[in-house]
Amino acid sequence: MDYRYGKVMPLEEAVTGYVEFLKQEGVGVETEVIPVSKAYRRITAEASYALIPSPHYNCSAMDGIAIHSRETFGATSTTPVYLQKGSFEIVDTGDPIPDGYDAVVMIEDVVWQEDGSVRLDSSSAPWAHVRQVGEDICQGDMIIPSYSRISASHLGSLIAGGIREIKVLKKVKAVILPTGDEIVSADKLPAKGEITEFNSVIFSAMLSDFDCEVDVEPILKDNLQNLTDKVKELAAKYDLVIVNAGSSAGRDDYSSRAVETSGKLFAHGIAIRPGKPAIMGVVDKAAVMGLPGYPVSAAVVMENCVFPVVEYLQHSFAARPPKIEAVLGRRIVSELKYQEYVRVKLGRIGGKFIAIPLPRGAGLISSLSHADGMLTLPLANEGMEAGDVVEIDLYKPLHQLENTLVINGSHDPIIDVIGDFLRKKDYQAFISSSHTGSMGGITAIMKGECMIAPIHLLDGATGVYNVAAVNKYLSDCDVTLVKGVKRQQGLFIPKGNPKNLKDINDLTREDITFVNRQKGAGTRVLLDYLMEKNGITSEQICGYDNEMYTHTAVATQVACGNADCGLGVYSAAKLYDLDFIPLFSEEYDLVVRNDCMDNPLVKEFLEILHSDEFKEFVTEMGGYTF
Amino acid sequence: MDYRYGKVMPLEEAVTGYVEFLKQEGVGVETEVIPVSKAYRRITAEASYALIPSPHYNCSAMDGIAIHSRETFGATSTTPVYLQKGSFEIVDTGDPIPDGYDAVVMIEDVVWQEDGSVRLDSSSAPWAHVRQVGEDICQGDMIIPSYSRISASHLGSLIAGGIREIKVLKKVKAVILPTGDEIVSADKLPAKGEITEFNSVIFSAMLSDFDCEVDVEPILKDNLQNLTDKVKELAAKYDLVIVNAGSSAGRDDYSSRAVETSGKLFAHGIAIRPGKPAIMGVVDKAAVMGLPGYPVSAAVVMENCVFPVVEYLQHSFAARPPKIEAVLGRRIVSELKYQEYVRVKLGRIGGKFIAIPLPRGAGLISSLSHADGMLTLPLANEGMEAGDVVEIDLYKPLHQLENTLVINGSHDPIIDVIGDFLRKKDYQAFISSSHTGSMGGITAIMKGECMIAPIHLLDGATGVYNVAAVNKYLSDCDVTLVKGVKRQQGLFIPKGNPKNLKDINDLTREDITFVNRQKGAGTRVLLDYLMEKNGITSEQICGYDNEMYTHTAVATQVACGNADCGLGVYSAAKLYDLDFIPLFSEEYDLVVRNDCMDNPLVKEFLEILHSDEFKEFVTEMGGYTF
Repeated sequence: MDYRYGKVMPLEEAVTGYVEFLKQEGVGVETEVIPVSKAYRRITAEASYALIPSPHYNCSAMDGIAIHSRETFGATSTTPVYLQKGSFEIVDTGDPIPDGYDAVVMIEDVVWQEDGSVRLDSSSAPWAHVRQVGEDICQGDMIIPSYSRISASHLGSLIAGGIREIKVLKKVKAVILPTGDEIVSADKLPAKGEITEFNSVIFSAMLSDFDCEVDVEPILKDNLQNLTDKVKELAAKYDLVIVNAGSSAGRDDYSSRAVETSGKLFAHGIAIRPGKPAIMGVVDKAAVMGLPGYPVSAAVVMENCVFPVVEYLQHSFAARPPKIEAVLGRRIVSELKYQEYVRVKLGRIGGKFIAIPLPRGAGLISSLSHADGMLTLPLANEGMEAGDVVEIDLYKPLHQLENTLVINGSHDPIIDVIGDFLRKKDYQAFISSSHTGSMGGITAIMKGECMIAPIHLLDGATGVYNVAAVNKYLSDCDVTLVKGVKRQQGLFIPKGNPKNLKDINDLTREDITFVNRQKGAGTRVLLDYLMEKNGITSEQICGYDNEMYTHTAVATQVACGNADCGLGVYSAAKLYDLDFIPLFSEEYDLVVRNDCMDNPLVKEFLEILHSDEFKEFVTEMGGYTF
Repeated sequence: MDYRYGKVMPLEEAVTGYVEFLKQEGVGVETEVIPVSKAYRRITAEASYALIPSPHYNCSAMDGIAIHSRETFGATSTTPVYLQKGSFEIVDTGDPIPDGYDAVVMIEDVVWQEDGSVRLDSSSAPWAHVRQVGEDICQGDMIIPSYSRISASHLGSLIAGGIREIKVLKKVKAVILPTGDEIVSADKLPAKGEITEFNSVIFSAMLSDFDCEVDVEPILKDNLQNLTDKVKELAAKYDLVIVNAGSSAGRDDYSSRAVETSGKLFAHGIAIRPGKPAIMGVVDKAAVMGLPGYPVSAAVVMENCVFPVVEYLQHSFAARPPKIEAVLGRRIVSELKYQEYVRVKLGRIGGKFIAIPLPRGAGLISSLSHADGMLTLPLANEGMEAGDVVEIDLYKPLHQLENTLVINGSHDPIIDVIGDFLRKKDYQAFISSSHTGSMGGITAIMKGECMIAPIHLLDGATGVYNVAAVNKYLSDCDVTLVKGVKRQQGLFIPKGNPKNLKDINDLTREDITFVNRQKGAGTRVLLDYLMEKNGITSEQICGYDNEMYTHTAVATQVACGNADCGLGVYSAAKLYDLDFIPLFSEEYDLVVRNDCMDNPLVKEFLEILHSDEFKEFVTEMGGYTF
């Protein structure tokens, strides 16, 4: 059976329409009465009115004596009034005003007489220096209206107003149903062809931020009948049912059909990317939504389709991530017929934010955890140019981004190590590093998109590292070249060297597949230098165009047999227990913008780099010298 | 025994010094290993490195056929390559690449032959259209560094990286110890002289936002020995002990002495207002902090002293409230020697935010729940002028403030009712009303500080309501006067009219105490009009200067016996079951800025005002006609 999307709807239309649809279908949560002390962050189901005033008795606002104001009328320094002992009472701040009295005279205005009476040189108005009943809250005052999220201080006002129980909306009961033949639970490590199910953990966390009660069902195999039955069963018990995945329109994508058969399908296919295969429907009195399997797509649908539904169910708007303006660091292309979501890394340099788009693969969960913010490209937008000022929804607190050291350039595991040292040293400091290769780092320094750029660029002519590159490319920039580490570059080969490689010339062998680094990477530059020296052309090397972005990625390809050989640093070879043929001892240095030299984060970074503790640690990693 | 503050420290010095002190004293939390699936929002105790790559096998990025790239080398449309049946395999997107193959040809590039072989017109590079092992995450990659709050997507990356358990910091264990002879638990309503304990509920909620585990102790009476013993006992079990109150320097304030006797007192008295009587100390290995009893003071100390301590304990910075710029609506005076905190209501009108300072009484819990944001006046600042541009820390989400209808002027309970109707009608809409009286509302309209101003201003000459005032004061403003409700103004008197009042002239009687409304209130204007008509002067009325800001506040004073009589609307008298002597039927109308007429919130407000549902409701309240 061939199955297709329905009309692919624009996001706005889909969400507002779906919420309207949910209303018509009577989808909603019930109410319950709970103790105020347990009501934090809950949402009121009706307005609450104070039952008692606060303060509920007149109390003194000063240390002094309680008096009857009428007895002081007309008092002046020339015509003072005397109050006999017994016609006044001493009170401290906060004390109740004794019956019969209606004002307080500050202790410093009381002139004590021998006989225990007092002289007053000025008259008191009724309730002078008294906190009168209801000064804070009056009986009958509305303390909180309907459908409002109860704050910490609301709790105080409610209790002060004599309210002990409050009617709130029940928490939204949500359930996540993972489906798919290839999906396995995280209990065990996945075998080849198996994909570990982790979306439900991500969704649960996201929904917990909305104070939903979330359950997760066992994984269901792809089967239309079973899925339909299960959806019916869950819809009877929950307010929100999230089916993941099978929301697409392929052979084994049953979600939309299951919704159609068991209830009403409102939308299948939304004009967003990633996330197009979203499903919106109603079964029984539950909102049933289908999410794509790729985590990046699913997250977009969660944020843009599921959250609004939760908000509808809670009659309450949740906080939106704050927005900032940033300068786009790289060009982005977008398809006209989709609203596109691009995750970005943000760096704050010289007062302005730079947004660097992250890889957009829908399967890259790492792109989610690396993201500092989200850039949205509306429908009918062809893309953005580098340098454009864009609006970004923040995923991380602003103050964190303002305390983030921005590094861009050549990858080495020690950068992450320094980042970790930094966290341990100063919990207010963060690090953000992008692996764009040495040349990428040089460009970022030039464009003011990073504070520090790690580079290792060999000057073929002189055989000297980095100095030439800095002079050549950064002559107009005010930078300092800080000495970093010496590290061993060499060939990664499987343990025992089965194919008996000796040196760079073996890369041309018919039976050897190589794995390379991306253009602009210092390691790639080194390879090309060595190839030239040995008169090797790229056509002679099988796999020359298979590019990886990190040393560990290269080691991974060799370790898993995708390649017979790759070029990289010793520490990565050691990490993967690979054999290593040393080819070159190189210098991995750091270009620092001088306008960042006084930045405390940069200072801390350099302190760590030069600390004995750090040197010990990386020496342990292997292949590094100082 | 007379006890004094120590040296009163500036906030910055106190907090940084105290955190340093906690470090020296070895105050900190332990670590624990927990399942990743339970680790959301927890803080890592060490860096986590991927144990397996993701994807952990090569899988197809396309629907097509898996082939061996070498067999396609040199293929062109003129020199095609033929692959015999069995030398390739059909794969769907996501399928593992069968052993022996290293590339995928997209199905649309495959030319099928009669005999089941395929023709390829172009060559494939190794790993073309293949998601290679580790494309997302490589074994050994650092997924999250030390002391980082685990996000939803981190959970995904950790699981994808084969990590099932993670070492995190234990949650901060905090305990709140309420103390005071006058303090009673919220289980029962308080008697005269008793104060209901609600600070612990507020503190617990605030600390729960930091993911602390919070316990609350039973209320402890004021007794130095018992307090000292209890603090010792709690310090042994908790990371953070909060003593509330008794932190001041009065006769019964034992907190600082208890800390001194049982451990080390670091600071007593901080140069902030409110909140000066804060205490910072260490007992055993716990941070022990004393907070003042007044809720507003205590909240300031929580935010500015306790939160930083929790952050130190968690090695982690929490999100700060976002800041916005606002125009100060009223003058604020500040004392040079304190850093002062002033809560404000915010209104967004015509693109800019207006900040209206709330009453600053330390006991006004309502000022906490009404606050939209906080204005901080630094040390050595004398205050701010109306019109100054100030920076505000937001307490409410920005989008909420942008969807808030701003009302400023005369108080009537029906405004809250409309606000509640608005919440029920549109959960994205909010209302904010300030009770500044009719004249205050007129001024706010003039200064563009509100969208709608409810007024009821009688023109003595014509006896006509509101029109004259609008013409007189708002001639230069583009506004519309919208008809509101007719309501009964009259005298509030205790049930049964014990003192037998008849009319306004009785207010001059010796035995009558009156309670008035604030200057600028329409009801005050009405009173003055009636007094003038009857030749009564303010001196003749006892209690004329006792001012309340709302009708319910006036009713409260009469109901509790603070006054024999007050002037206000019937609905308030009815609410308090008071007798009511009608004096005047007045018109309570709404001045609307025309530049706000298209504002959807204003439209919704007016729709509600004119709806039958609303009219029924307020008719039920009594004293209103349309």
